[in-house]
Amino acid sequence: MRLGRIAQPEGLSFAIIEGEPGSLVAKEVPHLFQPEPTGREFTEDQFKLLAPTLPTKVVALGRNYADHVAEVFKESAEHLPPTIFIKPSTSVIGPGAPIRIPDFATNVEFEGELAVVISKVSKNIDPENWKDHVLGFVICNDVSSRDLQFKDGQWARAKGIDSFCPLGPWIETDLDKFDLDDQKINAYLTHDGERVQKQDSNTNQMIVKIGHILAEISQSYTMLPGDVITTGSPAGTAPMTPGDTIEIEIPGLGSLINPIERA
Amino acid sequence: MRLGRIAQPEGLSFAIIEGEPGSLVAKEVPHLFQPEPTGREFTEDQFKLLAPTLPTKVVALGRNYADHVAEVFKESAEHLPPTIFIKPSTSVIGPGAPIRIPDFATNVEFEGELAVVISKVSKNIDPENWKDHVLGFVICNDVSSRDLQFKDGQWARAKGIDSFCPLGPWIETDLDKFDLDDQKINAYLTHDGERVQKQDSNTNQMIVKIGHILAEISQSYTMLPGDVITTGSPAGTAPMTPGDTIEIEIPGLGSLINPIERA
Repeated sequence: MRLGRIAQPEGLSFAIIEGEPGSLVAKEVPHLFQPEPTGREFTEDQFKLLAPTLPTKVVALGRNYADHVAEVFKESAEHLPPTIFIKPSTSVIGPGAPIRIPDFATNVEFEGELAVVISKVSKNIDPENWKDHVLGFVICNDVSSRDLQFKDGQWARAKGIDSFCPLGPWIETDLDKFDLDDQKINAYLTHDGERVQKQDSNTNQMIVKIGHILAEISQSYTMLPGDVITTGSPAGTAPMTPGDTIEIEIPGLGSLINPIERA
Repeated sequence: MRLGRIAQPEGLSFAIIEGEPGSLVAKEVPHLFQPEPTGREFTEDQFKLLAPTLPTKVVALGRNYADHVAEVFKESAEHLPPTIFIKPSTSVIGPGAPIRIPDFATNVEFEGELAVVISKVSKNIDPENWKDHVLGFVICNDVSSRDLQFKDGQWARAKGIDSFCPLGPWIETDLDKFDLDDQKINAYLTHDGERVQKQDSNTNQMIVKIGHILAEISQSYTMLPGDVITTGSPAGTAPMTPGDTIEIEIPGLGSLINPIERA
């Protein structure tokens, strides 16, 4: 099942999203965690997809793909283990919303990532039972100003600026839909009207696997329902400039598309 | 005026807190942002102070006191400018609540800091008009596992563990009560029954001043009502072990006291 959040003519709703882009149907439900249709339905021309969850925090794992560690840090992943950082709730935007780049954030890159949405208050998750704590998968674009990232040392600003955390287009709740050891992650950047594939990777490159990521993060932080954990970016990240459009695609999970604007 | 949040026999309330510890009186108000007494009052034996605000995020400035940069980073502040990081909402606890240290968080130190509570949705704050965006001052203890801080590189985990952000005892809304260029910050650690002063510093050691901190942080992040910005720790931080009690005192603002426990 695909769960989303929508703006419709009468307000905001959570909804089951069915069909394919161009002929989507949204069947309203009371809540992400109570997905029984109310009977109200909207066709794609009647609604706009929003970020499917409103997390209190997005916890991210940096340096979790060896190929990305090599390209960004010019270092072997052996010497730079994965590290945890936080993107604040105010950085979250939905599909189609602009990523707005302020003047001081230079060299801004996309990072297409597979993320999970937490389903219940969770602490000390058992890595074997991680699915008991997850509502579903979502695509995350971990937008990052490389210049601020290296200048600040801490990544909270470079990766936490308003609009630097697109989430969407919806949450896939079928946790067995993917082979998590062999799931493609693609990113396509449209610049000057030309669409070029930039990320062409696979979760088989992940260093720490999902169960252990959730275990490690929930040792430190109580995770709340709707919170997001994103699992790191593979190689292929590249700079974006105002006027571009970035599309992160995870086959089976959909495409998260956002235009780039100057803030 | 001092605003707090309390647990009282019938539930939770916001309140104006009057009197001195030992004979405090809490006058219930509908909300932090609507401090008109409802008429219900509680004496100190009838209530327990909680964290006075429930921030969506705590944004912190690291390395904002030259003396602390020298003691922790063994480096001159000129070479290590202040840096921004985030403590998640789930790290916040109130006065008297235990700081709970998990096994993997070793070498855990207190950091007594002066913090502000944001009063309205704020973006791109003008440093000259920072008071228009601040409800009041509060004490923050930026608890930090030094070992995780240096091992991880990113500070999100070392400083973001559940219970690692005591806030309290209340919010002082009189923004002109202090001379912000000459305000004492003290910390007293009680270990094996002996209370020793550890921090004995002053805001005159701050590198970036409050107006500019708020301006810089709100360039990146929309700050929401109740969010907290903490301004950095002066020198004197020291390790805490289970059984200890840590008291951060800012004269005129009160004392924030928390016991240390093993998680």
